[in-house]
Amino acid sequence: MKNDEVMTIAKKRGFLWSSFEIYSGVAGFFDYGPLGGTLKNKIMEKWREYYVIGEGFYEIESPTIMPEEALKASGHVDHFNDPMTECKDCLNVFRADHIINEATGKDVEGLPNEELSRILSEEKLSCPNCGGPLTHVWSYNLMFQTIIGSKGKQTGYLRPETAQGIFIPFKRLLRFNRGKLPFGVVQLGKAYRNEISPRQGVIRLREFTQAEVEIFVDPRDKTHPQFYEVAEDTLNLYSAQSQTDEGDPVKYTAQKAVDDGIVSSQMLTYQLCLALRFLKDLGIPEEVIRFRQHLCNEMAHYAIDCWDVEIETDRYGWIEIIGIADRTDFDLKSHSKHSKEDLRVFIEYDQPKTVKKLVAKPQMKKFGPLFKGDTPKIMEALKEMDASQIKDSFQESGDYPLEIEGKTHILTPDIIDFQEVEETVRGEKIYPHVIEPSYGIDRIIYSVLLHCYHKEGDRTILKLPADIAPVEVNVFPLVNKEELATVAWRIRDELRREGLIAEYDASGTIGRRYARSDEIGVPYAVTVDHQTLEDDTVTIRNRDDSKQVRIPLEDIYMTLGSLIYLKTEFEEL
Amino acid sequence: MKNDEVMTIAKKRGFLWSSFEIYSGVAGFFDYGPLGGTLKNKIMEKWREYYVIGEGFYEIESPTIMPEEALKASGHVDHFNDPMTECKDCLNVFRADHIINEATGKDVEGLPNEELSRILSEEKLSCPNCGGPLTHVWSYNLMFQTIIGSKGKQTGYLRPETAQGIFIPFKRLLRFNRGKLPFGVVQLGKAYRNEISPRQGVIRLREFTQAEVEIFVDPRDKTHPQFYEVAEDTLNLYSAQSQTDEGDPVKYTAQKAVDDGIVSSQMLTYQLCLALRFLKDLGIPEEVIRFRQHLCNEMAHYAIDCWDVEIETDRYGWIEIIGIADRTDFDLKSHSKHSKEDLRVFIEYDQPKTVKKLVAKPQMKKFGPLFKGDTPKIMEALKEMDASQIKDSFQESGDYPLEIEGKTHILTPDIIDFQEVEETVRGEKIYPHVIEPSYGIDRIIYSVLLHCYHKEGDRTILKLPADIAPVEVNVFPLVNKEELATVAWRIRDELRREGLIAEYDASGTIGRRYARSDEIGVPYAVTVDHQTLEDDTVTIRNRDDSKQVRIPLEDIYMTLGSLIYLKTEFEEL
Repeated sequence: MKNDEVMTIAKKRGFLWSSFEIYSGVAGFFDYGPLGGTLKNKIMEKWREYYVIGEGFYEIESPTIMPEEALKASGHVDHFNDPMTECKDCLNVFRADHIINEATGKDVEGLPNEELSRILSEEKLSCPNCGGPLTHVWSYNLMFQTIIGSKGKQTGYLRPETAQGIFIPFKRLLRFNRGKLPFGVVQLGKAYRNEISPRQGVIRLREFTQAEVEIFVDPRDKTHPQFYEVAEDTLNLYSAQSQTDEGDPVKYTAQKAVDDGIVSSQMLTYQLCLALRFLKDLGIPEEVIRFRQHLCNEMAHYAIDCWDVEIETDRYGWIEIIGIADRTDFDLKSHSKHSKEDLRVFIEYDQPKTVKKLVAKPQMKKFGPLFKGDTPKIMEALKEMDASQIKDSFQESGDYPLEIEGKTHILTPDIIDFQEVEETVRGEKIYPHVIEPSYGIDRIIYSVLLHCYHKEGDRTILKLPADIAPVEVNVFPLVNKEELATVAWRIRDELRREGLIAEYDASGTIGRRYARSDEIGVPYAVTVDHQTLEDDTVTIRNRDDSKQVRIPLEDIYMTLGSLIYLKTEFEEL
Repeated sequence: MKNDEVMTIAKKRGFLWSSFEIYSGVAGFFDYGPLGGTLKNKIMEKWREYYVIGEGFYEIESPTIMPEEALKASGHVDHFNDPMTECKDCLNVFRADHIINEATGKDVEGLPNEELSRILSEEKLSCPNCGGPLTHVWSYNLMFQTIIGSKGKQTGYLRPETAQGIFIPFKRLLRFNRGKLPFGVVQLGKAYRNEISPRQGVIRLREFTQAEVEIFVDPRDKTHPQFYEVAEDTLNLYSAQSQTDEGDPVKYTAQKAVDDGIVSSQMLTYQLCLALRFLKDLGIPEEVIRFRQHLCNEMAHYAIDCWDVEIETDRYGWIEIIGIADRTDFDLKSHSKHSKEDLRVFIEYDQPKTVKKLVAKPQMKKFGPLFKGDTPKIMEALKEMDASQIKDSFQESGDYPLEIEGKTHILTPDIIDFQEVEETVRGEKIYPHVIEPSYGIDRIIYSVLLHCYHKEGDRTILKLPADIAPVEVNVFPLVNKEELATVAWRIRDELRREGLIAEYDASGTIGRRYARSDEIGVPYAVTVDHQTLEDDTVTIRNRDDSKQVRIPLEDIYMTLGSLIYLKTEFEEL
C-alpha cells in the first residue's frame, strides 16, 4: 500500500515519526523531523503567500490556552463531544458511532446518544477488542482541560480551533480595518482534540496545526469583487443532493456553481477556487481532489453551507483536509451575549434615510421627585429604546417595567408623553457573517507526501514542487577526491549564503547518492567532476527525469534560483 | 515612561494587546494583532536565516503536550517550581522570593524554602495586598497539567521548554546526521509556565514562544571551525566575577574572551556573537545589550556555563531575552536512564587502538546443565561486560550475582575462566554535550518595539529595520481624487503581486497619513500626485528623515525591493 511505503520513508528519512518513541509513544502525537519541519514551514509560507500577501488578510496570534467562559460562549464546553461507550469487561473505551459504522456500514455521525445506544443494543454489537458487553452511550468532551493560576480557581482548555482567537478580539480587528466590511483575518497555529483512541497515524492527531481564515462580510452582500478572476475555474463538486441521490461528483465552473445555486454564494465559491489552486500548487493532482458539501445532519449548528475539500487516499479513502463554511453570525452573536460587549458593525447607508420614530418624552416635573438619583440613567435608557414597546405595554398592562443594572423602575402613562418624530438615519448596526476556510496543515502534508510519491522501475521519487522541497539542491563530488570535494563544498557554501537550502554528500557511489536524493525529493543535484577542474562547468541533474545539463559555474545560483522559485522548465536550460 | 508610550501605541495600532479582553482578560496572555503577528513572523523568519540557512541546522517540531515520564526524566516534574506563600487573611498567593526582594532588596532567588520561610518571619514581612500574615513557603510546580485520553490514565503537561522535544528523538536526529558530531537542531514554538501571579505585561507570559537551538558536540572538543569569523566581534561581558566584585561589564573581543577563560569555550562564545549580530540586525542598539554570566547559585543544575543576553529597559531594568548555556550531557543521560534507550554516540578514533581486555569465558560443559534455557542470554551478557568486575567480585565474595531481566544467576569461579585478550577498538561511545542558545521571542519583540521607538519633536517614529516592518510600503494619493486614487490602487496591487506588503490609504491629510505611517514603522511611502499623471513619476518618502525622491513609476518595485531587502541607503537613490 502506498500509504505504508510513504510512511516508512517519512520515518526513516526524517519527515515524520511518532512522538515520544523512547517512552513507548503516546497515540495521536507526531514529530516533524528535520525534513518534515522544513516542508511544513514551506507549506505554511506558501499559504501566507496566498492569504496574507495575495488576499491582503493580516495574521494574528492568540493563545492556545483559553478560559472556560470564552469556550462556553463558542459552544465548545457544551457541544464539542464524541459519543463514547465502554466495554464492561476489558474497560476499553470506543467511539460508539465508529463501532456501529464498522459493524454495519451505516453512517450514524451526529445521531443523539439515545439513538446510538438503541442501535448498539438492537444490532447486538459488542466490544471490538474482547467481545464483552458495551455500556450505554455518553458524551465525552474532546477538549484538553487544565487549570490557569495557582489556586485552581480558573478552568482553562487548550483551544479546539484557532478561529475563536479571532472572534474574541473582533472589536480591535474591526478598528484596525477602520470599521469597514469585508475584511479577513488569519491565524496559523496549534489546535487540540483529546481523541478517545486515535488510531489513524497523522490523520487523527490530538495536537495539530490549523490555518484558518475568518472573513467578515455584510450578510446582505456575499458577492466577491474579484470573482471574475476565478469564474472559469473548474470545481469537482459533490453536492448534498448528489450524495443523497447516490450520484457522483460533477464538474462545474465556479460561475455555474453560483448561478445554479449549488454553492450558496460567490464569497464561498471564490474560497473553494483558492483552495484548489493552493493544493495544485503543492503538487496534489486535480484528479484526487473533490469538494463535498455537508449534508444537513452533519453540518455544524452554526453553518448554513459547508464544503469539505477531500483528497483520495488508498488507506483511508476520501479524507477531509480543508473545511470551507459560511458560519453566519453565530460566533459574534454568542460572544456578544456572553461577554455583554456589542460586537456589531455600523454599516453606513449609501444615502441617509429619513424614518419616522416614536419617542418617549418623560414629564420632567414628575420624573425628578419620583426617581431621584436614578433619573439620568432612566432618561438615557429611554433615548436608546424603541418607544413603541413602551406604548404597547401601557395598552396591555397599564405600565412598563424598565430594568437598569438589576433595578426595576415602573413607568406609567401619566409620566410619559409620546411623540412621533422624523429622524435621519445614517446606517444601522449589524452582526457580520463569517466565511471560514479552515486548513488542516498536517493532513495536507500527508496528502502532499502521498501524492508526490512515485515508483518508477526501481527508482523511488518524491516529486515535490521545487519550491517546497526541504532540501533544494544537493552538491556532489562525482568521486570522493579532495580536489573535487573542495569545489563541491565551496559551491554548497555559496548557495547557502544566497539563501538556498543546499547539502553536500560524498558518501557512496554517485548512483546511490542520486537515489537517496530522489527519495527525499531534492529537485536538483549539482555534480562536480573532472571537467569542472578544467573548464569551470558543472552538471545540474533534474530529479523527475534524471536528465542533466552542463552549465558554467558562475551561472549556478541564477540557474537554480530560476528553476526553483520562478519555476523555469528544466528543458529551457 | 517609554514603556508605557510604546505599549499604548502597540495596543491602539494593532501590535499587541491583552488576550480575552471582552471576558475581562486573563493575566499572562497576550494576542499579537495584525501588525504584531506579521512582525513576529518576520523576526522568526530572520532567525531561521541565521540558524537554519546560515548555520545549517534543521528545524523540527514536537508536540507541546508531553507525557509525564518524559518530564520526570528532564527533572521538570520534581524541580520546575517556584516558592509560594499565601496570605492567611485575603488568601492571595505570592512568590516568596519576590516579596522578600521587594521589601528588602535582597536577591534570594534559588534559596531553599525553609530559608525563605525563615527570612519572611525574621523580617516580619506580611501580605503586600492586605497586610495579613503569610504562610510558610512551599513549592509550586509551574507546568500546566492535563489528562491525555479518555480515562484519566495518563498525565500530561504543556512543555516548559521546546528543548526536550529535541532530546527525546535524539537517536533519529543523530541518524539523520549520519551519526556524526557536531550537529545542531532547532525548534521554534510555544512553551508554557503557569506563573503564580504574572504582572509584568509581555515580559512574564504564561504562554510564550521560544526559538531554541541544541548543538550536540563532542565533550572533548568545544572548538568551533568558523570561530575566526567572529573572533574580532566585541562583546560586552558582565562576568560572574565582575558581578561578585560589584564591578561593571567589560568589553572583550570574542578571541580574548576565550583566551582569558571568561567564556568557557569557543562554541559558547561563537553563539554569543551570533546572538549579538541577530539583535543588531533587528534594530536593537549595541549600547543596550550586555551578556551576563550566571552566578553559581543561579545556574541550572545541568549547566557548567551560562550567559544571559540582557536588554536595558526603562520599566523593568535589565531583562533576559536570550539564554546561552552549556547544558553538558545532563539531558541525554537522564533520558537514557529513564527510557532505557542508549542515547550515546559512537565516536571513531582517528587511529584504531589496541587495548588489553579481560574476558570471561564460560565453561560450556557446566553452563548448559546449570542454566538450561537461560544459557544463551547469560553468554550474551558476559560478552558485553567488563570481566574485571566479575573477577573482583569473586575475590571479594566468592561469587557474582548476574541479573538479567529481573532474574538473578549466581556465577562462581568454578564455571568461569578468565583470559586476557588484545582487542582492536575503533572508537568509543560517549554522551555528547549540548550547547543551547534559547531565545525568548516575545521579549525580543518587546525589546525591538521599545528600542525602535523614537520621539522627534512632535513626530513619533518606529524605526523598525525595513525588512521586518509589518507594512513595507504605504501608497498614498496626495489628495483623495479619483484619478490619483486609481493610480495609487494600481501601484498598491502591483507591489502586492510582487510580494511586498503594501497598503493604500487616502483618509485625512497627507501629513496625518505620514504621521500614522511613521507611528507603525512603515519604512517607505509612495505618493501619487498631479505630476504622476503628467510624467509617470512618483515620490518615495523615507520614514526616518522624511526626505523624498522622485522616481519613474516603472522603477518602483526594483527601487523598493532594493531599499527593503538589500538595504540600499536612501541617499543612494
